[in-house]
Amino acid sequence: MTQAPKDIDALIDLMARLPGLGPRSARRAVLHLIKKRGQLLNPLAQALTTVGETARECLNCGNIGTSDICGICESEKRNIGQICVVEDVADLWAMERSGIFKGRYHVLGGTLSALDDIGPDELRIPKLRDRVTTEHVTEVILALGATIDGQTTAHYIADELQGVQVTTLAQGVPVGGELDYLDDGTISAALNARKAL
Amino acid sequence: MTQAPKDIDALIDLMARLPGLGPRSARRAVLHLIKKRGQLLNPLAQALTTVGETARECLNCGNIGTSDICGICESEKRNIGQICVVEDVADLWAMERSGIFKGRYHVLGGTLSALDDIGPDELRIPKLRDRVTTEHVTEVILALGATIDGQTTAHYIADELQGVQVTTLAQGVPVGGELDYLDDGTISAALNARKAL
Repeated sequence: MTQAPKDIDALIDLMARLPGLGPRSARRAVLHLIKKRGQLLNPLAQALTTVGETARECLNCGNIGTSDICGICESEKRNIGQICVVEDVADLWAMERSGIFKGRYHVLGGTLSALDDIGPDELRIPKLRDRVTTEHVTEVILALGATIDGQTTAHYIADELQGVQVTTLAQGVPVGGELDYLDDGTISAALNARKAL
Repeated sequence: MTQAPKDIDALIDLMARLPGLGPRSARRAVLHLIKKRGQLLNPLAQALTTVGETARECLNCGNIGTSDICGICESEKRNIGQICVVEDVADLWAMERSGIFKGRYHVLGGTLSALDDIGPDELRIPKLRDRVTTEHVTEVILALGATIDGQTTAHYIADELQGVQVTTLAQGVPVGGELDYLDDGTISAALNARKAL
């Protein structure tokens, strides 16, 4: 309800359904868009149309790209012996921004969750099993969230995959982190995994 | 920098320029859009294109509508004797949501501001003067923000408009407000404007 003309109201309703925006910020965003029609609104409409037409999930790993097989799976520079398993494409992007991992990925599309009724077949776990047997994989690195569901999923996958090394990201003090601000669980994990200097 | 394909990167960059969204929330919004292509991405692209083509400023009052003269200025049900002056279209929508005002509006497009070099001619003040003389206006209600710039603008407009009653919104305790949480200025204003029960 904005008392705006119905086209504009419809746009506000759609914007308000984006994560991070509510009705009020959607109204503000739409007014901003209308003011910046040439620099922002028209390019955004165009970019959305383009992405709507071209974006698709990689059939191999679940990454989002513009072809059936994503750039990472296609690249000959990536180490095909390592697969990094992530929950979501956002996590894959975060790993790529760090620039440290040179293998390939596998995007699960979520975590196992009894509450939300998500089992292995709702995720991309069967496909991971296939890839491990067909792609000469030597190591599967589980980069799942340090949540209960994330860790449950990690243990399930570790049990499922036989004949391949399964590792997980280290837990500890984040770079730049101050002890005073860390929770007890992180401090225990960092202490247990202490190493010689 | 998302390591996403360039079309998707371009979309994220544009989304990040919306007020209320930053790079991280723009990435989240774009991934959400791609997941909900049919229900959200395609309708949003369509709605943006429509609004880009149809939205325009009312030549009379500055409201945003889909024709040269907006629905409120055109309506015969609105009281033509009253003009409510607001800073922005968002404020006009807020007034309309309250449903209490039955006159017409005038959107200034900002406030006078020496710092930002905004004088009367950058705002829609000359047009307001014209309307007051040509539209049989009996009362101009200033609904500007209770900020320094808003109040400066209110006083400037009150000085400019002769031969018409100029009023301003009352200041006081907001409905549902608790005294303990109000600033001193609001409490003084409410006390000075106290009325018999």
